[in-house]
Amino acid sequence: MEGFTFYAPTYFAFGKETENKAGELVKRFGGSKVLIHYGGGSVIKSGLLDRVKASLTKENISFEELGGVMPNPRSGLVYKGIDICREKGIDFILAVGGGSTIDSAKAIAAGALYDGDFWDFYEGKTVDKALPIGTVLTIAAAGSEGSPDSVITKEEGMLKRGASGEAYRPKFSILNPELTKTLPPYQTAAGITDIMAHLYERYLTNTDEVEVTDRMIEALLITMIKEGPRVIEDPNNYQARANIMWAGMMAHNNSCGVGRTQDWSSHTIEHELSAVYDCAHGAGLAVTMPAVFTYTMNHDVNRFAQIACRVWDCKMDFYHPEKTAKEGIECLRNFLKSIGMPVTFEELGAKEEDIEKMAYTACYGDGNGSGYIKGFTKLDQKDVENIYRLMM
Amino acid sequence: MEGFTFYAPTYFAFGKETENKAGELVKRFGGSKVLIHYGGGSVIKSGLLDRVKASLTKENISFEELGGVMPNPRSGLVYKGIDICREKGIDFILAVGGGSTIDSAKAIAAGALYDGDFWDFYEGKTVDKALPIGTVLTIAAAGSEGSPDSVITKEEGMLKRGASGEAYRPKFSILNPELTKTLPPYQTAAGITDIMAHLYERYLTNTDEVEVTDRMIEALLITMIKEGPRVIEDPNNYQARANIMWAGMMAHNNSCGVGRTQDWSSHTIEHELSAVYDCAHGAGLAVTMPAVFTYTMNHDVNRFAQIACRVWDCKMDFYHPEKTAKEGIECLRNFLKSIGMPVTFEELGAKEEDIEKMAYTACYGDGNGSGYIKGFTKLDQKDVENIYRLMM
Repeated sequence: MEGFTFYAPTYFAFGKETENKAGELVKRFGGSKVLIHYGGGSVIKSGLLDRVKASLTKENISFEELGGVMPNPRSGLVYKGIDICREKGIDFILAVGGGSTIDSAKAIAAGALYDGDFWDFYEGKTVDKALPIGTVLTIAAAGSEGSPDSVITKEEGMLKRGASGEAYRPKFSILNPELTKTLPPYQTAAGITDIMAHLYERYLTNTDEVEVTDRMIEALLITMIKEGPRVIEDPNNYQARANIMWAGMMAHNNSCGVGRTQDWSSHTIEHELSAVYDCAHGAGLAVTMPAVFTYTMNHDVNRFAQIACRVWDCKMDFYHPEKTAKEGIECLRNFLKSIGMPVTFEELGAKEEDIEKMAYTACYGDGNGSGYIKGFTKLDQKDVENIYRLMM
Repeated sequence: MEGFTFYAPTYFAFGKETENKAGELVKRFGGSKVLIHYGGGSVIKSGLLDRVKASLTKENISFEELGGVMPNPRSGLVYKGIDICREKGIDFILAVGGGSTIDSAKAIAAGALYDGDFWDFYEGKTVDKALPIGTVLTIAAAGSEGSPDSVITKEEGMLKRGASGEAYRPKFSILNPELTKTLPPYQTAAGITDIMAHLYERYLTNTDEVEVTDRMIEALLITMIKEGPRVIEDPNNYQARANIMWAGMMAHNNSCGVGRTQDWSSHTIEHELSAVYDCAHGAGLAVTMPAVFTYTMNHDVNRFAQIACRVWDCKMDFYHPEKTAKEGIECLRNFLKSIGMPVTFEELGAKEEDIEKMAYTACYGDGNGSGYIKGFTKLDQKDVENIYRLMM
């Protein structure tokens, strides 16, 4: 276990009708002039946006609105949000939606207080200042409601990149599992996959002696394996949705990832897929993870055998640990398939002819990258091409 | 899973030499005139106090000192600390020590900003205002470094009571596992027991469908069962101490206890033992827990069978689940014995003749109590007497 710092000062209000606390919480955390940021029609149709607005009005908080966030949120809308913040003197950003909306809100929050181009943060600059952010979460998936992270796609070149910093942790997040009941099963399953990916990426470490975080990650994965299928079978299962929602936050606030190196190869390799084909990030991960794990398994067979036994209830083959390791990866693939996720390149609409370009961008970005994806292993462009081919 | 709020805004600096960040962190969280609070000679002898002072001085932070905190910290020193804060204009309290020192620091922090008697908070008044607190932790045990709780013993009548409130969460906590290496094995083991008790008290719930928190609690218990014996065998095992230290914080910051009823009967019943016999709280819990669990087991046999199977690797006896439940309790007792904890009344120095009085105080306090300990079950004075007798 390595040294670390951990700071997660987000206030969580969890449970039914908690969206009605939005006004009270914005006030508590110093907001008086709010930008409400959201996506498409669902938050309008469901009446959620109206309830949130009513809650703000009740506390005499004024607000502007900016809708239109798309999955894999784009830089164009971020610039628009930054302009509104400056013109209207916004002092708090309230994201009503899923990870895309929250990530877009974070980018606006940082950009509004920064003289340069907000994209600098997505090319490595640390986010140390941002307008305060609150969230009303509508899908358990990205964990952005409790994380210091944000991922944005730059339209020019369709570059999908992440930024991080303490200032990106929301001041508060409202988690009402009921709000996730109306999600289509495909989106619910993509969210489940994303949560599981956050856990796997942390599990694949080169740090020794990390029993406490290993066990916590396993606990959250086991929860997803139990609760995931229940919510796919019955979208109205409040309890299953509640368990998934808290697991999704815990999976990514990093309390189970401290003191250990992490991987994030699957995310990097997937980002090209969702940038190029605009697929759901979770669906892309369902295709990517088994391929990455199969390709990198031999780097530490016992780590994969451990997760196979502890999480997937495989029996350890002590003569052939690699068989156990592979069985665990197969269990993951079958599970993802069972909840309705794609598991091949084709199902995703991806094409062989794009592999070389995607592998290049994954390793080199727009030309300035190191040429490697470094995490659990060190992958170069050829490795990444091989991994994409494994998905076919 | 029930609705809840969760807010844990403590900054953690974890790892070797992190005590040297004390000054920087006090400054970050607004302190300029500090009261350093500590216990006995060990923090002086080890040089820790000097290193912390040097770190404050480096940041031009002035400080006063108040040592002398004893295990099961007393109200007398709290009053003294409150006086110092008022006289010297203290604006930040830095606890250097274990749970007792941190709990005492919390009481001083609340009392300094309160016109009435600080003991009001320990009779049920919510702590909504306190001076900011920082900690440099020297034993993994109480979890006070990340919790909103404090327990103090009132010398008049030797009443041991807890208080809680958001203002009691430390602004920062410094967790250096190396600082715990010099602890005597008995204290290390008492700390391990306390951590396990925090997990059991949360596990014993009457709330259905709490898979995510069940699994997290189990994960932390399994960690303690693996790492506990390693650190008893080799006190210098940094990695085992590091895993225990993070598990101890996670066990009590309540991220694994949200959305479910909790028990706390073992703590209430133990508090009488450590108040009357001045034993280590953890040692008292080692004697108390198996007795409480044996007495209350039939309230929900499956819950005890579940923890027996998942945490202690017992095999489920589907014909006789109560046998599995009992086996799990026996595993706990044997584990505590194996790390050097007492498991009987006698080993603790406790006496049968005190049972009636202790049971009365546990249920009625100084006369104003409800007559019951309510948690997993509802226990009256006769029940508590029976439980104490089970320890003999």
